[in-house]
Amino acid sequence: MTAARLTGSVRIVGTGLLGTSIGLALRHLGIDVVLANRSPAALRLAIDYGAGRAAAANDNPTLVIVAVSPDSTADLVAAELAAHPDALVTDVASVKSSILVDLQVRGADITRYLGSHPMAGRERGGAMAARADIFLGRPWVIASHALTTPAQERVIESLALDLGSTPIRMSPDEHDRGVALVSHVPQVVASLLAARLLGGGDTLPSLAGQGLRDTTRIAGSDPELWIQILGANAGPVAEALRAFRNDLDGVVDALDDPAAPGAPTRLAAMLTRGNQGVARIPGKHGSDARYETLVVQVADEPGELARLLTEIGEEGVNMEDLRLEHSPGAQIGFAEIAVVPEAAGRLAEALETRGWQLAQGGLTQGSGS
Amino acid sequence: MTAARLTGSVRIVGTGLLGTSIGLALRHLGIDVVLANRSPAALRLAIDYGAGRAAAANDNPTLVIVAVSPDSTADLVAAELAAHPDALVTDVASVKSSILVDLQVRGADITRYLGSHPMAGRERGGAMAARADIFLGRPWVIASHALTTPAQERVIESLALDLGSTPIRMSPDEHDRGVALVSHVPQVVASLLAARLLGGGDTLPSLAGQGLRDTTRIAGSDPELWIQILGANAGPVAEALRAFRNDLDGVVDALDDPAAPGAPTRLAAMLTRGNQGVARIPGKHGSDARYETLVVQVADEPGELARLLTEIGEEGVNMEDLRLEHSPGAQIGFAEIAVVPEAAGRLAEALETRGWQLAQGGLTQGSGS
Repeated sequence: MTAARLTGSVRIVGTGLLGTSIGLALRHLGIDVVLANRSPAALRLAIDYGAGRAAAANDNPTLVIVAVSPDSTADLVAAELAAHPDALVTDVASVKSSILVDLQVRGADITRYLGSHPMAGRERGGAMAARADIFLGRPWVIASHALTTPAQERVIESLALDLGSTPIRMSPDEHDRGVALVSHVPQVVASLLAARLLGGGDTLPSLAGQGLRDTTRIAGSDPELWIQILGANAGPVAEALRAFRNDLDGVVDALDDPAAPGAPTRLAAMLTRGNQGVARIPGKHGSDARYETLVVQVADEPGELARLLTEIGEEGVNMEDLRLEHSPGAQIGFAEIAVVPEAAGRLAEALETRGWQLAQGGLTQGSGS
Repeated sequence: MTAARLTGSVRIVGTGLLGTSIGLALRHLGIDVVLANRSPAALRLAIDYGAGRAAAANDNPTLVIVAVSPDSTADLVAAELAAHPDALVTDVASVKSSILVDLQVRGADITRYLGSHPMAGRERGGAMAARADIFLGRPWVIASHALTTPAQERVIESLALDLGSTPIRMSPDEHDRGVALVSHVPQVVASLLAARLLGGGDTLPSLAGQGLRDTTRIAGSDPELWIQILGANAGPVAEALRAFRNDLDGVVDALDDPAAPGAPTRLAAMLTRGNQGVARIPGKHGSDARYETLVVQVADEPGELARLLTEIGEEGVNMEDLRLEHSPGAQIGFAEIAVVPEAAGRLAEALETRGWQLAQGGLTQGSGS
């Protein structure tokens, strides 16, 4: 058990994916975690899962984490500030300015409120999908305001670090403009793109490929949650969508007369700026940025993959993820093995010594059409 | 070796990803494949790969497949029509009307040209990334025109079926409007979305999550190829982008006054239409629609996964893909095993008999924020 930076008892209000995952991670560090949820059944599930214990009469949390939907967050933060007059209260909602303003309007004691936003999640929601490691390597925004003290920032920073996240300090406004670009605008665009498919004929869906699946995947998101998020961050999202629309107008103009002088150049500029923008996103796309991947050549014979995994176990290395790729009929396949960066070099060497052939990295990423 | 539907010799012009993959698949069926490429080194690679042989003096192909970039396709189709007066010539370019018009303008013998478009690809391009199975379960559009005969359609249908694809007949115009929606508009939108990241501050990229990675992944595509595709399909793409822009304007209006009566309803309608649109896309998102997935619970102990794979091999079932998921510190992990649909039921039963616990399907897909 690693020593925790956080001290004292932590109360988590809301036992969905984020609340339960935080509880699991803190319990692994030996921290006393009290869970609360308005649904007794949901609370019971999170407790059974090992994310914490039920509240008791003499609980005295030093930190309260409100992990509920954006619309309910200000309500519950205000209630927790009132109920625990010695505690620092934070939340994990994906908008920050509107919650702070709401608390100010209510006259809540915001000298003890410091909002935050762990940029982590999973496609599967709810306590059942909770995992202690969803915060590993992910940013955790600490949205300090005018009344925040350095000591309070250090508490939330300790929480983020204890969970393996990277704390990032931003003002609530900076945060909201940032998530508009990296999260809220992509949601709107994916939804609009998927909605276009409703107009097409019956054969249209059969033409769908991986590019369409990727670009529209988040269009499957919960409308109820997203009405809340978009409504609470309307200004920054509208501003970013206007800029997007201006760029879009330029593309439509170029396509209206694609043979005109300058039209190919404008399309090229748009595509190149897209290349540059996507290059700013850290980590490998489509894979997990927290781990390094080794690609090992495996003969397409029974038992070969089992032998590889056995030998990786003998080297004492934990596989975090494994993908197998082979073409039917081909004589070889490839096992893509994700390990923590610290272990990658040692394992690569050990496997080569044992006679395995590792594919050299840098297979070029091209384009499908 | 399965019997091929195609008869005679096939000539493939262009040995990139698609040309080489088609060659590999046809060779597996025992068909004589002649490869051609203007680069001798690239040709050599595809031959070494097993995708076919070099041309000889007395070659007499019954079918020529032109698999080059959209801009060069009409040129090479015209040349092949002239060079092989008995052959049917097809191509695999991702636009169809403009190539047909181009051939008509040149006075090429389009009575022997029937364009097609296999909707398959990989992120990795080139012969090195070729796989015989990239066409399995994918649509293969046959773009019949006024002079096409049923016998010619049957030849391309045989090609598609031999490669495991699903043939779909469409007019060139229908095809172009369809791919505008499922492929070309997503490309433009992803590029514009990624380009927006260039404006943000230094901390912006660190906020990126999986949703942004997915929606912008194809923004990494090759600009040179995409200028060709967008230019060749400019009309349908511009039309679809205009409809997208109208929807976008509605969202911006709603966000400009999110508290106005009706604004939340408009946002809800947009998000719900996105849900409905993405539901039209067949297959699981983010995974491979060709296979079924079994999720097997695996104790986090050395050798357990190796034992599972050994037993799957004993059952005589080929794993097409394998993913491992486990939370550090958790006592169990899950192996997601992709197999051909025919084998899924039998393997599930066999594994349960052997004492493995299978996770019940239908884990809900929620939303990250």
